[in-house]
Amino acid sequence: MDTADPLAHLRDQFHLPEKQIYLDGNSLGPLPRATPARVHAVMTEEWGRDIIQSWNTADWMAIPRRVGDKIATFIGAGPGECIAVDALSINVFKVLNAAIHLARADAPTRTVIVSDANNFPSDLYIAESVAASHAGWSLRRVAPEDDMTPHLAPDVAILLLTPVDYRTGRLLDMKQIATAARAAGVLVVWDLAHSAGAHVVDLTNADFAVGCGYKYLNGGPGAPGFLWVNPSIIQRCAQPLQGWLGHAAPFALTPDYTPAPDVQRFTCGTPSILALTALDAGVDTLMAAAPLGGIHALRLKSQLLTSLFIDGVDQFLGSHDIEVVTPRDPAHRGSQVSLRHPTAAYAIVQALIARGVVGDFRAPDIIRLGFTPLYTRFVDVFDAIQAIVAVLDTCEYTRPEFQTRHRVT
Amino acid sequence: MDTADPLAHLRDQFHLPEKQIYLDGNSLGPLPRATPARVHAVMTEEWGRDIIQSWNTADWMAIPRRVGDKIATFIGAGPGECIAVDALSINVFKVLNAAIHLARADAPTRTVIVSDANNFPSDLYIAESVAASHAGWSLRRVAPEDDMTPHLAPDVAILLLTPVDYRTGRLLDMKQIATAARAAGVLVVWDLAHSAGAHVVDLTNADFAVGCGYKYLNGGPGAPGFLWVNPSIIQRCAQPLQGWLGHAAPFALTPDYTPAPDVQRFTCGTPSILALTALDAGVDTLMAAAPLGGIHALRLKSQLLTSLFIDGVDQFLGSHDIEVVTPRDPAHRGSQVSLRHPTAAYAIVQALIARGVVGDFRAPDIIRLGFTPLYTRFVDVFDAIQAIVAVLDTCEYTRPEFQTRHRVT
Repeated sequence: MDTADPLAHLRDQFHLPEKQIYLDGNSLGPLPRATPARVHAVMTEEWGRDIIQSWNTADWMAIPRRVGDKIATFIGAGPGECIAVDALSINVFKVLNAAIHLARADAPTRTVIVSDANNFPSDLYIAESVAASHAGWSLRRVAPEDDMTPHLAPDVAILLLTPVDYRTGRLLDMKQIATAARAAGVLVVWDLAHSAGAHVVDLTNADFAVGCGYKYLNGGPGAPGFLWVNPSIIQRCAQPLQGWLGHAAPFALTPDYTPAPDVQRFTCGTPSILALTALDAGVDTLMAAAPLGGIHALRLKSQLLTSLFIDGVDQFLGSHDIEVVTPRDPAHRGSQVSLRHPTAAYAIVQALIARGVVGDFRAPDIIRLGFTPLYTRFVDVFDAIQAIVAVLDTCEYTRPEFQTRHRVT
Repeated sequence: MDTADPLAHLRDQFHLPEKQIYLDGNSLGPLPRATPARVHAVMTEEWGRDIIQSWNTADWMAIPRRVGDKIATFIGAGPGECIAVDALSINVFKVLNAAIHLARADAPTRTVIVSDANNFPSDLYIAESVAASHAGWSLRRVAPEDDMTPHLAPDVAILLLTPVDYRTGRLLDMKQIATAARAAGVLVVWDLAHSAGAHVVDLTNADFAVGCGYKYLNGGPGAPGFLWVNPSIIQRCAQPLQGWLGHAAPFALTPDYTPAPDVQRFTCGTPSILALTALDAGVDTLMAAAPLGGIHALRLKSQLLTSLFIDGVDQFLGSHDIEVVTPRDPAHRGSQVSLRHPTAAYAIVQALIARGVVGDFRAPDIIRLGFTPLYTRFVDVFDAIQAIVAVLDTCEYTRPEFQTRHRVT
């Protein structure tokens, strides 16, 4: 399968540790080979040589939009609609406030944000905070389904969902959900943290989308995220982090704020040019797939990888207390497979890491393995299965050293 | 004076373009020589080698606090009180919201934020936004003086001031202002963008401080800023950007938000480790002054540099339409000198840049020159004066190429 894989050579874009099977690109993408030289050049040839003048000579100001335009190509957005900026949680804060601003004008009796009770907690923390800061507003936590109609009550203003469940890998039908929401007069905010670069994103009838730069976009630890706004509403959007770089004319330094006419109005302070440069290099590893079918080809490979892994679990791990919690229909899962072990998920993950198979643990009982199509080989799937079999057959995971909890897990 | 300068060798820490006199460190600090290797090592030896495990093995999670502790040493704060995080404007947003939260509990009849009408506009944009998001609150713009008593009316809750005026370089008496504010029951927020690393900061009776990493801290373009909270109030602070990394136990991924017990609660999303690494290297260029008297020694040199420059203006530029707008008393100015030219300030700055003397223009009529004591030599002051004399004597600045406005000025 690797020999026949038209995307196989894309793996060469990455520095991947030898003798390791890295199945955690859904947490932190690996280092692209091009990144160190790109960042070094910005440091020495731009910052180091032209210092302040690089804002003009290297057009640093344009980087958030330039990277945003690249991201747009694989989330189904158009040029000028997307910007690389700030951390994901900050972007969630901005778009939820913008959505409330719109809802207040268009549907003042709607005062509820609906989200997934199992959404990534930071999204819920921010949604709680935003709801609490607007009189009468609240957050309602539900169990999302492709048919969200039962949850689209007349008091609902905003639907904040993450298409891929970060624990189980379950993928929602974005188009069906957003179309039903729009028909019900509900604004849709997508969190694409586990989607951008991982599967085909459908922004039909969506209003806002935000995402993360350090997972499938390979932008490096804590890379800036991104933010997309449906162009039909951008000029009516207001958000409270109205810093100078979201101003229509930042360097006029006028005493009052006038938002930029486009998505630039979702910028606040000065962005890190080094962090954006690394993100740009990371995004380029996905752009390299464009001539080969882009995100559609990557999605196909991702489905083949995860299907092969699930087949392996069924074939070799049937005698163990392991359950596949990710949907078995490849159309309904992201680029990961999660296994449940009732008592020892954490220790199994640690034992696998010791064997060079790097996945992660998600409380309370999830072994989470990401199969990133840009650099994961089919042989890696086979070897990962073999490692799990070995860890379970020998009870290797019961060793004391695998029980110790790390600070970050 | 350079020969006798005990800080002269600190200049060797920087990559500075030859044949250039860089007087814009108050806008963007130059590249420290150590930075490229430091950032490269994080990319290749941490991200590249250990990928996700570097969060544990390289303790990435601790970097914001570690850099914050270094910054604390030269702003008069203690360990554990300061954190390097997010852009300055975002930090202004966080601390103003936290201050309103405190004021509502302690003094509910106070509903006014007072700031400087000439404050850096982004601070005012954010303050307007924060005031507008709380019923009954407003921003009052005043002309600040060392005696702020007339502005500390019974309806004032918060004083948001930038000690150094970014245009004129005027330095306020931080201790006098904060002491009067506290006596009047007013919370004090300092914006240290032009202060940290530039002069001795006095946080006496202050409640919050925020600052910028890319000016005197030499952290690189768009470097993260920092945030300090008086430890006496930290446990009562709440702020709306309650992302997962401000949680008391981020990786417990609990559905509800519990803030960290300390300044960590002002963190939101995952910070850029590359950007923080560059900031750390930049901050270290200031730490290198610690054995030589630290910020006190730097301040003395800064005052000598700016005094020498003003003397030069008086001596050599008296026949031109140039006015020193920075206070002549060195105790009342930051680390810059600003000159006013009624008609041609922009063109003069461009003509100086063409001659290798890099300062910047601030609308409508300010030529702004920063004298950063870490790397500016006394001979640079002399040469800068000579260049200004040449540009003015020959009317060089009237050339057409110096009239064209750049996007970023």
